Amino acid sequence: MTLAFSAAELIALLTPRATRGGTTATLRTIAALKDAQPGDLSFLGNPKYKPEVAATRASVVLLPADFDGEPATDQLFLLVDNPSAALATLCARLEAALWPRPAAGIHPSAIIARSATIDPSATVGPLCVIEDDAVIGPRTVLQAQVFIGRAARIGTDGWFMSGVHLATETVVGDRVRLHAGVVLGSDGFGYESATGRHIKIPQIGQVVIGDDVEIGANTTIDRARFSRTYVGTGTKIDNLVMIGHNVVIGRHCIICAQVGISGSATLEDYVVLGGQAGVAGHLTIGKGAKADGQTGINTTVAPGTFWKGSPCLPYQLEQRINVLRQRLPDLFRKVDTIAAELAELKRLPR
Amino acid sequence: MTLAFSAAELIALLTPRATRGGTTATLRTIAALKDAQPGDLSFLGNPKYKPEVAATRASVVLLPADFDGEPATDQLFLLVDNPSAALATLCARLEAALWPRPAAGIHPSAIIARSATIDPSATVGPLCVIEDDAVIGPRTVLQAQVFIGRAARIGTDGWFMSGVHLATETVVGDRVRLHAGVVLGSDGFGYESATGRHIKIPQIGQVVIGDDVEIGANTTIDRARFSRTYVGTGTKIDNLVMIGHNVVIGRHCIICAQVGISGSATLEDYVVLGGQAGVAGHLTIGKGAKADGQTGINTTVAPGTFWKGSPCLPYQLEQRINVLRQRLPDLFRKVDTIAAELAELKRLPR
Amino acid sequence: MTLAFSAAELIALLTPRATRGGTTATLRTIAALKDAQPGDLSFLGNPKYKPEVAATRASVVLLPADFDGEPATDQLFLLVDNPSAALATLCARLEAALWPRPAAGIHPSAIIARSATIDPSATVGPLCVIEDDAVIGPRTVLQAQVFIGRAARIGTDGWFMSGVHLATETVVGDRVRLHAGVVLGSDGFGYESATGRHIKIPQIGQVVIGDDVEIGANTTIDRARFSRTYVGTGTKIDNLVMIGHNVVIGRHCIICAQVGISGSATLEDYVVLGGQAGVAGHLTIGKGAKADGQTGINTTVAPGTFWKGSPCLPYQLEQRINVLRQRLPDLFRKVDTIAAELAELKRLPR
Repeated sequence: MTLAFSAAELIALLTPRATRGGTTATLRTIAALKDAQPGDLSFLGNPKYKPEVAATRASVVLLPADFDGEPATDQLFLLVDNPSAALATLCARLEAALWPRPAAGIHPSAIIARSATIDPSATVGPLCVIEDDAVIGPRTVLQAQVFIGRAARIGTDGWFMSGVHLATETVVGDRVRLHAGVVLGSDGFGYESATGRHIKIPQIGQVVIGDDVEIGANTTIDRARFSRTYVGTGTKIDNLVMIGHNVVIGRHCIICAQVGISGSATLEDYVVLGGQAGVAGHLTIGKGAKADGQTGINTTVAPGTFWKGSPCLPYQLEQRINVLRQRLPDLFRKVDTIAAELAELKRLPR
Repeated sequence: MTLAFSAAELIALLTPRATRGGTTATLRTIAALKDAQPGDLSFLGNPKYKPEVAATRASVVLLPADFDGEPATDQLFLLVDNPSAALATLCARLEAALWPRPAAGIHPSAIIARSATIDPSATVGPLCVIEDDAVIGPRTVLQAQVFIGRAARIGTDGWFMSGVHLATETVVGDRVRLHAGVVLGSDGFGYESATGRHIKIPQIGQVVIGDDVEIGANTTIDRARFSRTYVGTGTKIDNLVMIGHNVVIGRHCIICAQVGISGSATLEDYVVLGGQAGVAGHLTIGKGAKADGQTGINTTVAPGTFWKGSPCLPYQLEQRINVLRQRLPDLFRKVDTIAAELAELKRLPR
Repeated sequence: MTLAFSAAELIALLTPRATRGGTTATLRTIAALKDAQPGDLSFLGNPKYKPEVAATRASVVLLPADFDGEPATDQLFLLVDNPSAALATLCARLEAALWPRPAAGIHPSAIIARSATIDPSATVGPLCVIEDDAVIGPRTVLQAQVFIGRAARIGTDGWFMSGVHLATETVVGDRVRLHAGVVLGSDGFGYESATGRHIKIPQIGQVVIGDDVEIGANTTIDRARFSRTYVGTGTKIDNLVMIGHNVVIGRHCIICAQVGISGSATLEDYVVLGGQAGVAGHLTIGKGAKADGQTGINTTVAPGTFWKGSPCLPYQLEQRINVLRQRLPDLFRKVDTIAAELAELKRLPR
């Protein structure tokens, strides 16, 4: 996709209170202050990054109206009431260019149960299936070949890509974006073993997703055994993640690709899990705790802590042990030498 | 879903030979004897758990008719011929409430090859595709948007959720439950490398699934290079599992989420693999062997053993090494101290 | 599937320049020289394997026309201009038997935008959706229930199995084989965190796939934040792999199942990643480098090197450390003994 904004177009779009400096660059993408290159737009969303503004190479920077620094050469400052809000405006514009909203209405090839309720402003694309008593909220778009099971309820402004599957009674909030192949509400993995066979425990709960959640391609979230599996507002989940039954995830968490979260685990708000990390069942990860990629979390984790390794240890300790581990060949040799010297010493006459 | 049974309703459903005690609790779920809480139903399916009956907090317990203990306060014993069978009866009732069986017949939007054979008691939901020579057995339900490839054969009482894909010649037994997005019969990953390119080895075998198997959402099982990839009766497989070509899995195994099993591995009966475990190709895991989550199995494993770590070691050894590993900083310091003391000692006059 | 060739049928199919020896075996599959069993066909595609010909148990061996060895008993040599080309001819024949090419044309149940361009020799199966401005090349087959997003372009001779999803503007080369459930072009996982919320960075790039690529079931490849996520010609990718935004993969790589590659990583040509390996973002893996299963690559890797462990170390070093690691209980005991003996020695009068 060819996307390009001039400084003038940005000013027209974002209507800043004031501008400082100027740039001839064509703006092509958005980056954090410290990562930005010429041609990028950046922004100061959090005052703690203020020292990074002076060094940023971004061609355009969104700043709060009371910001008092000066731009570099060929750099434009846009002073706005709320840089984060301005950024969101720009993002919405960029996405609209790539994903133009389809017309409201139901494609004639979609199969819709009579008892389903579909807001007139929603879009139901080709070959979707919507079962009895399902509810689709205002302006929600089901792209194509989406399945919405019996009595599922979807809020406003959702965007479900092709091949999304929502099982019976799944509930999804507002402004939720589900990528292709997402499955919500598949049965949890629960059996009682008796007489050498595994007898299925009915999984009769549901999946409930808060507002402003995004879920990546082919991720699966299982329905609860009883009650609900829950994902809190603002949480972002990457591709091929597995979330087991009765897991409760807080607000604004970041769950990277291929993470697995076992049944009945709890993640408090702002937890960050690196790719391929695994979480054992029935434990709690405290607010703001983080885990590196491939970490195996098998213990309850305190808020704000950072973990690494499988099984996990505090990040700094694990890093230190990993360094020492590489020195094991030396250590074994050194201990052998010491043992030989000690034996020699003991043999000496006194 | 609001689900609730009174003691009286349970008695009416399960028709026990006798009852002992009583409870006013509303029964909402099923749990193992040691995990059960008030409001739960539990059961004694295996005599070895008999000692756990006295301590269980379950409000209702299914017991064999000759059980001689007494219930606690507000606890009801139901004495039945076969507690496991009674449990299965209850489970079937619970699931039927959530997943009412759709009417038999073929939805007019489904695309069915003329040479396909579909039992009149089967249900083929909207927008399914069934190719030539496929066979769908009695009472099997294809929920919606399911694909059944050429000459695939499915037994009786199957339940395939939306978006399941079965490639050409896949064979599935009776009472098999496949969750949304399952792929059976995709090509195995096999190439011969010649002159700097990877030449595909045709994958002309098939996938064969036994009876009473359940497979979780978005799991994939590859067809054999030749002959068959096989999953034995009663085995349960969780979400996002990968089973490579020519793998043979025995009966009543438990394969947790995101496990990967490489080509031509063999799992004997009752193997249990924890989440994210990996199994290398061309090896055998003996009957009843277990592996913890994230284990990397790169060796043939004897029956009944328990493994952990990557690469795997016997569970107890791996646990012990993980404890010692945390003491490496101390060990390095201690060896340095010893070396210094020894040098000092050697310097002393004798 | 029953597949069987006699020696005579193979000769008729491959028209060798000459034959040597003979076999009564029925040929059923293809194997590497060192793995082949009676009943297998093998081949000498690379001169460096010439010493393996004498010991191979294959019933038929494809060899270059100037090969001068003699076959064993009941073994047939087929001398051809190019063994790799002959193998490819045979493979094409085997696959054609299992996957007969459907008739060209568009199934009446497919939903095709008017502005899409579909070559008359292509096949669009039942219940596919093709959006505006998409292009489907000659002889490409979309099996069933495939989604091709707006302005996506697919080359010649592609074969997309059921339930493949290509998002807007995805580009795919010639002779690409995508298995069921593959998702190309889902949004990359990128957010800027501001005021306690994660603001989505629009993912406005695309996915571009070279020629002769094969991608396994339910694998996902994310579109770039800007520019492109790229997979080079001849690369083979297994099931349930996750490839993040802006990743660049070279030619003829092998990516095994459940691998995860984080955003902006670069793989040069001929890289091989074992199952469940993970690659951190923004690093480069040099040409021909390899990683064992479950490896965690968190560093730039030189060409031709081999890695293992999480975090990764050179393979030989990691193997050695894993051996020493098992001896940690002994080492701790030995150091305790040494310390005790040293203390004793220091107590002695001199």
